[in-house]
Amino acid sequence: MMEMLPPSADILCTHPMFGPESGKHSWKDLPFVYDVVRVCNEERQKVVDDFVLIWELEQCSMVPMTSKEHDSFAASTQFITHTTGRMLAGLNLTSTPIDTKGYESLLGVIDTTIS
Amino acid sequence: MMEMLPPSADILCTHPMFGPESGKHSWKDLPFVYDVVRVCNEERQKVVDDFVLIWELEQCSMVPMTSKEHDSFAASTQFITHTTGRMLAGLNLTSTPIDTKGYESLLGVIDTTIS
Repeated sequence: MMEMLPPSADILCTHPMFGPESGKHSWKDLPFVYDVVRVCNEERQKVVDDFVLIWELEQCSMVPMTSKEHDSFAASTQFITHTTGRMLAGLNLTSTPIDTKGYESLLGVIDTTIS
Repeated sequence: MMEMLPPSADILCTHPMFGPESGKHSWKDLPFVYDVVRVCNEERQKVVDDFVLIWELEQCSMVPMTSKEHDSFAASTQFITHTTGRMLAGLNLTSTPIDTKGYESLLGVIDTTIS
């Protein structure tokens, strides 16, 4: 982006680490990753700050982090989670009256990845 | 068991649906499955009742159920949970600063199955 975009374009990279299932009740304590790559002037810095503030006010866990770090963590956690969740979704697993905590977690992986 | 054991032997089948990891803090609301198959007399019925009461007092979720039903539910939930957990354990996954709920669930499957 730094090469492709004109120097006049500000760059703020963000990734809320949640979706419609995991964040449906609240965003409290859910990680919001952001990387203020470049901001041209003070006026625009205020726009950036205001945008970031939206997530702070929702009580997200604010995680300033370079995109490179984010990509490294995300690659090591999201690929395996979504691959596992989508494979398991094909088995049409359902709750029973005697679910263990482990099985509940397994259903949780499916619920959060197929939404 | 009904064929192998002498008629004088009482049979009470139980399965606490938790282990050292999932039940380490409390047994509250964790399923305790039991099947009073046969009890010879009232005196022994009291022994059975007292044993079952231990789990009730720990606030387990008490689930009276035939062994056949239990085996059907357990086969459909425990095989896939333990297979998944033990396979994932081989990847040596760890927490990161940006874990999603799905990834936390994935780690939960591992934690509860390798203990």
